[in-house]
Amino acid sequence: MPRAVRIGICGLGTVGSGTLNVLARNGREVAARCGRALVIEQIGARRDNPNCDTSQLSVTRDIFDVASNPSVDILVELIGGTTVAKELVRTAIENGKHIVTANKALIAEHGNELFELAAQHGVTIAYEAAVAGGIPIIKSLREGLVGNQVQWLAGIINGTGNYILTEMREKGRSFDQALAQAQALGYAEADPTFDVEGIDAAHKLVIMASLAFAMPLAFDKVYTEGISRICSEDIRYAEELGYRIKHLGIARRTDKGVELRVHPTLIPERRLIANVNGVMNAVLVEGDAVGPTLYYGAGAGDEATASAVIADIVDVARTLEAKPEQRVPAAGVALAEQGGTQVLPEEDVITSYYLRIAAHDKPGVMSQVATICSDQGISIEALIQHEPVAAEALVPVVILTSRADEASLRLAVSQIETLDTVEGEVVRIRVESLG
Amino acid sequence: MPRAVRIGICGLGTVGSGTLNVLARNGREVAARCGRALVIEQIGARRDNPNCDTSQLSVTRDIFDVASNPSVDILVELIGGTTVAKELVRTAIENGKHIVTANKALIAEHGNELFELAAQHGVTIAYEAAVAGGIPIIKSLREGLVGNQVQWLAGIINGTGNYILTEMREKGRSFDQALAQAQALGYAEADPTFDVEGIDAAHKLVIMASLAFAMPLAFDKVYTEGISRICSEDIRYAEELGYRIKHLGIARRTDKGVELRVHPTLIPERRLIANVNGVMNAVLVEGDAVGPTLYYGAGAGDEATASAVIADIVDVARTLEAKPEQRVPAAGVALAEQGGTQVLPEEDVITSYYLRIAAHDKPGVMSQVATICSDQGISIEALIQHEPVAAEALVPVVILTSRADEASLRLAVSQIETLDTVEGEVVRIRVESLG
Repeated sequence: MPRAVRIGICGLGTVGSGTLNVLARNGREVAARCGRALVIEQIGARRDNPNCDTSQLSVTRDIFDVASNPSVDILVELIGGTTVAKELVRTAIENGKHIVTANKALIAEHGNELFELAAQHGVTIAYEAAVAGGIPIIKSLREGLVGNQVQWLAGIINGTGNYILTEMREKGRSFDQALAQAQALGYAEADPTFDVEGIDAAHKLVIMASLAFAMPLAFDKVYTEGISRICSEDIRYAEELGYRIKHLGIARRTDKGVELRVHPTLIPERRLIANVNGVMNAVLVEGDAVGPTLYYGAGAGDEATASAVIADIVDVARTLEAKPEQRVPAAGVALAEQGGTQVLPEEDVITSYYLRIAAHDKPGVMSQVATICSDQGISIEALIQHEPVAAEALVPVVILTSRADEASLRLAVSQIETLDTVEGEVVRIRVESLG
Repeated sequence: MPRAVRIGICGLGTVGSGTLNVLARNGREVAARCGRALVIEQIGARRDNPNCDTSQLSVTRDIFDVASNPSVDILVELIGGTTVAKELVRTAIENGKHIVTANKALIAEHGNELFELAAQHGVTIAYEAAVAGGIPIIKSLREGLVGNQVQWLAGIINGTGNYILTEMREKGRSFDQALAQAQALGYAEADPTFDVEGIDAAHKLVIMASLAFAMPLAFDKVYTEGISRICSEDIRYAEELGYRIKHLGIARRTDKGVELRVHPTLIPERRLIANVNGVMNAVLVEGDAVGPTLYYGAGAGDEATASAVIADIVDVARTLEAKPEQRVPAAGVALAEQGGTQVLPEEDVITSYYLRIAAHDKPGVMSQVATICSDQGISIEALIQHEPVAAEALVPVVILTSRADEASLRLAVSQIETLDTVEGEVVRIRVESLG
């Protein structure tokens, strides 16, 4: 049997303590599957965590001790953030250590540079835990679907946002009410921007897109739209039309470039992914050979994320003495084999749209709207117009359009908004069939 | 760059031709991801297949030529069956070749022996394509979830059966009608026994259970019950109770042994897996760290299965020159680390049950049934008794029971069947919450 692999863990927050606890419970079985013993050589953490027992372990308050510890083979970065974490990871790589990280921001924003550095030093960076928690989606994209040209992928990759949308649909809550509930349950931060505005999802999306399309990480090119403007009435109207509203990260290969976008999306309720509720995550991947595949599970949580961290540790440990080319490359392909980062401008993205128009209850509104759409080459595929509520002058008109490019749609919407018979802004949400 | 890996493909049926076609289309990208060129050195097939082009390839009519060809590194076995295929694989292993196979029967029934032989010769056997077609479930169980103790798994792993049950539910068809439809569409064989009686599912189940529980393959210990006795009225009553009927393969870890069973099962319709329809497959895996995860996709088809074959080829190719311990072991752990094959006898399996009783429309039936159940420690959790159809003396009484062991349930059912007020056999189907 090969010698034990020596692990250094930096950060003892939720994921760090979860990793220690799972290793304490399942370490014997994990080592048997790995074919070598796993030893926690050192822990770097500014403070202890009462949720795990480190009394038998070597703990330092300076995480950089771990990066320079000659006895550490693998540094597990679980401190989060992109400043100290980046420095820590760089230092560890320069000292010849392999990296396992759960840090989506670090990979999405600095992955290109770090993968390059790792390649120079003959070590690897593993980051299964950075996307969709315990779901083995990185491994599936990078290895399981390696025979495919991925056509597109679409993921519910932020549990907080999915919880809020689920509460809004199931309980008729407003966004603010559902957010407050998520905060009370610890699913959302006091400042929820990162989750509800789609930044967290954008981090995860570019990581998946990079693997699916063998392209460098292009975080600054993602179009990102949050869910804070979704109203419960839109969820209800979507349902009347046979759709659910989900906050999706979508990446798609087109002739003109890759689409990279995070936004609320109407999807047909009969799709499996439309029925992924609460804090759960799921990623739907369409490969040219395999067709549609879906991966579902917990996207966060101490032990769910630890599950991914440990899977990475085992992968790295198994090939510790192997040659670099015998390991799966961090980026899915050697960096020299990556293509460009041509991302399709948002104006050129073509989808159907859900439009909600606040119209005066007068004859002729519908024909005016239809004419405007038609002039832009957009047809109306479905329409809901309920009876006006007594004593209210405005009726909501809900439309599903044919597929249109963003630029034409914007033009139509701005013309609709100038109609005398229409009040305020038109609500618009993209529609994807995912078929 | 390492030298090209040389592949020998035996069998040019659906999967063989699909593999050639996908490699012809995506070979360049696959090679880039693999880090080495892939060359099809030789094909062994008794006849050509008009669905793929072999004009530029070396084809032999004797598949054993491939097993003895010194230029072949990996033999891809796609001939099916367990006699010639076994001899072919044994010969190839003895000649130092790695094996990639889509043959579930071969692995389920002879895997223990073949893994042993492969270990002796320092080669590996990869079989992602043997379970659930293109879904990377083998990789997920063996690598992605390596940090977990899997508690249980439940899979829709036979597309033919799932198609039939879906047609019965959605269109109110009888089993015979749905089967005829499946045969007309090419989803079912002329002799459908293998699919509808659960033998195919049992093959796949033991392979997954072996990996999940690090146990030898135990095909002869699976309890198997088919779907040919499911009536459309049972599907309808299940729906009234909030359930779907699915043909599941279930493996569960218990203190007394592993449950291994394939049978029709009522599952709550709100579960994601209850909404997997048509020929699609899905596997739900509950790990102690990650919680529930689900993997969904096409369980059969030329290119979907080819996707899994190619993923295996790349895994083997990448570690061609690696040491055996640097590869993921075929059985998930070294054979010496496997536990026993203690399988829980079917009599000791505890689940809830759906019972349908044909009763005379007389007072007292319900109290008699309730007393019998109660005497066996079984309580009634839900009940449907519709008005009797005019001019019919028998009314269907449908019951969901509390959890009970098979032995107690059998006793209760046999007593119910002897009641004067009850006609014929009691229909019984297991119920699983999968929660």
